[in-house]
Amino acid sequence: MSVDADNLEGLRAAIVSGDPARIVDLLDALGEEDERPADLLIELSQAELRQLATVLGDEIAGDVLGDLDPEDAADLLERLRVQDAADVLEMMDPDDAADIVGEILPDAAADILTAMEPDEAEELRELLAYPTDTAGGRMTPAFVSVSPDLRADQTVVALRRVAQEAETVNYVYVTDAEEHLLGVLSLHNLVLTPPDTRVRDLMVRDVTRVAAMSDQEEAARLLNEHDLLAIPVVDDDNHLLGIITADDVADILEQETTEDIERLGGSQPLEESYLRARPTLLWRRRVIWLLVLFFAGAYTSTVLRFFQDDLEAVVALSFFIPLLIGTGGNVGSQVVTTIVRAMAIGDVRFSDTLRVVRKEIVTGVMLGAVMSSAMFARALMMGVGYDVSIVVAVTVIVIVVWAAVVAAALPIMLRQLKVDPAVVSAPFITTLVDGTGLLIYFSVARLVLESI
Amino acid sequence: MSVDADNLEGLRAAIVSGDPARIVDLLDALGEEDERPADLLIELSQAELRQLATVLGDEIAGDVLGDLDPEDAADLLERLRVQDAADVLEMMDPDDAADIVGEILPDAAADILTAMEPDEAEELRELLAYPTDTAGGRMTPAFVSVSPDLRADQTVVALRRVAQEAETVNYVYVTDAEEHLLGVLSLHNLVLTPPDTRVRDLMVRDVTRVAAMSDQEEAARLLNEHDLLAIPVVDDDNHLLGIITADDVADILEQETTEDIERLGGSQPLEESYLRARPTLLWRRRVIWLLVLFFAGAYTSTVLRFFQDDLEAVVALSFFIPLLIGTGGNVGSQVVTTIVRAMAIGDVRFSDTLRVVRKEIVTGVMLGAVMSSAMFARALMMGVGYDVSIVVAVTVIVIVVWAAVVAAALPIMLRQLKVDPAVVSAPFITTLVDGTGLLIYFSVARLVLESI
Repeated sequence: MSVDADNLEGLRAAIVSGDPARIVDLLDALGEEDERPADLLIELSQAELRQLATVLGDEIAGDVLGDLDPEDAADLLERLRVQDAADVLEMMDPDDAADIVGEILPDAAADILTAMEPDEAEELRELLAYPTDTAGGRMTPAFVSVSPDLRADQTVVALRRVAQEAETVNYVYVTDAEEHLLGVLSLHNLVLTPPDTRVRDLMVRDVTRVAAMSDQEEAARLLNEHDLLAIPVVDDDNHLLGIITADDVADILEQETTEDIERLGGSQPLEESYLRARPTLLWRRRVIWLLVLFFAGAYTSTVLRFFQDDLEAVVALSFFIPLLIGTGGNVGSQVVTTIVRAMAIGDVRFSDTLRVVRKEIVTGVMLGAVMSSAMFARALMMGVGYDVSIVVAVTVIVIVVWAAVVAAALPIMLRQLKVDPAVVSAPFITTLVDGTGLLIYFSVARLVLESI
Repeated sequence: MSVDADNLEGLRAAIVSGDPARIVDLLDALGEEDERPADLLIELSQAELRQLATVLGDEIAGDVLGDLDPEDAADLLERLRVQDAADVLEMMDPDDAADIVGEILPDAAADILTAMEPDEAEELRELLAYPTDTAGGRMTPAFVSVSPDLRADQTVVALRRVAQEAETVNYVYVTDAEEHLLGVLSLHNLVLTPPDTRVRDLMVRDVTRVAAMSDQEEAARLLNEHDLLAIPVVDDDNHLLGIITADDVADILEQETTEDIERLGGSQPLEESYLRARPTLLWRRRVIWLLVLFFAGAYTSTVLRFFQDDLEAVVALSFFIPLLIGTGGNVGSQVVTTIVRAMAIGDVRFSDTLRVVRKEIVTGVMLGAVMSSAMFARALMMGVGYDVSIVVAVTVIVIVVWAAVVAAALPIMLRQLKVDPAVVSAPFITTLVDGTGLLIYFSVARLVLESI
């Protein structure tokens, strides 16, 4: 975490001179230079940080915090006076504020919530009640709702009053006195209709909604599928609790995709930003799969011991072990990442299994032909003789096709068996191909060497 | 592509009975059962498909097509009568329609565009002028713009007139007579201000915008960073051409992430859906990296030949080659996927290099310790004696730490050298670790076996 000393000096000077615009410009410029404003801010002393909050004022301070990672923002907030922290949070969007408070130690968070306006604190407490990766944990209470008994023109007046507070006014939700979700109005309907139309007669009753305890990914999927700009979040009794707006979809997808990629690479998801993860966490997330893969791969040594005599008779066979199983692993990795991703975005389903396998066999034979020529040339170059060269050239075709088929079929099969296909990581396929590849290698060797 | 015969029968019956609601219900139900409506529709004969379009009517047919992949929708559309296809396209959102027309063969597309209303056709032609992965290729012309000379109340009236056509009314763009983008009004401002305020005095002049030829990812990044619900797209002369709405961000991110994942797996991105890609395309996307990796890994056989005498003296050393380099490759794969992803989402930057390497060394030693015990136990179990068991136990620690450091540092370094870090795929690291791992193995073996 190296911070440019000039930038730190500049920030300190701007704080002393009490110029909020200069501070904001400086932090914005940092972001464009690919440096993290949070790294700079964290270098400030507690006194400087408090001074900074005073200079910026609650609203701008809230904007600055809202642009940081919630974890970083929480670190900074904890170093402010409790009342200052409370004031800044009040100026932020409730969902962003809740994300930050969720990262503060419980005692400190309780103090800050107590120092806030009771209404705003209550709103945050409700948001904090849901796990961060659920729809409830993502929602904002800043929606607009009206009674079904209002007229269209009254609704427009009501809307005008609350528009400043709401995150979106594209949709106006209709709720009864107990806050049950009854329907939705689009602003389109509202402005196009005769002024005295009742909301009840205007609203769409069939509202796409998501349960508060649903995975946030479900909310993102629905928003995307129905091309919505916001989706209402309800509890089990259909009480409208909040909305998730389309601008949150990117954050949700980013988080979920990061988890998918980490799984594909053979780790359990970190669920925390990399730089914040301590080595013990990284260790825990990796060691389990490493051990599983180790035990899955341990039989490679048994296979080799089994073929010990062949190895001793033709030591040249051992030269090509890494290259052969490496090529198989590379093909497996190419195929498994493509297929797992295609399944994740709904492109490949169980009913496509045959089609996929056929496609991979054809592609595998074509790839195998090229790799076989390369392998044959390499073996001749090594001066191991025609017999071993033929063995490796034949082996590589079989391994490539085998790796492609296993890597394509296994994730689809597992999903059908309700096993998360994400367990079929690239390292998993590579390990599987290592052992079976050796069996193929020595079988081909015996066949070819004996028949020559 | 196996289609449920009952569903196909049901669809045919619904077409014959001329019941659009039943058809829509049937297709919706398919989607929920994880089957593709497109697979069913493509089974219909040309006559049935034309009948279907008539039964549904242009608007519903447009909805149905809009829910499919553009490639599938294009296949279906090409089988309709030209005039029918044109009518359906007219009812769709222009950006969705353009995506579909972009997938139709140029001659057929030209015929359909000629059959459309001139205005609508012109709109599509403008959208089609931009490559699909640019902001211009993603935008929709369905935005709302007003003159700066209008009053707030006039603007609301104008808005009312066009609200039905627009994709979003959250933002009203302000343009001069030549369609230059001057500013933006939020609906909030508009409804909260005195009715006779001039738009010119109300608008925000500092509008976040994106150039039509920019990568679509840039538009998604800006939308996300500024939490916008729409972003205007302009040409080089600042003419407002269209907008990209937040609900497109998910599609953009999905496409870009798929490319990232395919690269991490060691292929070039397909840029086409997997099921549509022919084996020759899959082959082309994979063979280049396979050959590169082959040549990069070919020296493993040289290394092994170099240590031929050691291998012949202690043949047991060869038993553990796949397991040792496999474990190194697995660690490398875990680390490289985590780091490349952390860099993609801006979590890890060049200034973090030291911090990352330190973290990976500590984690690597901890992982190495566990793997070392497992390796030692496995070797003893194989009955290869204490000396070889010690060699493999020591080797695995060194390989694990080495793999972690290489996999962490290399992508960061490459990016600093302006090389796309995506070339550092998991297979690339695995291959690199294969050869260096063998060097480590035999060096340790010589050291330990000679000193015992």
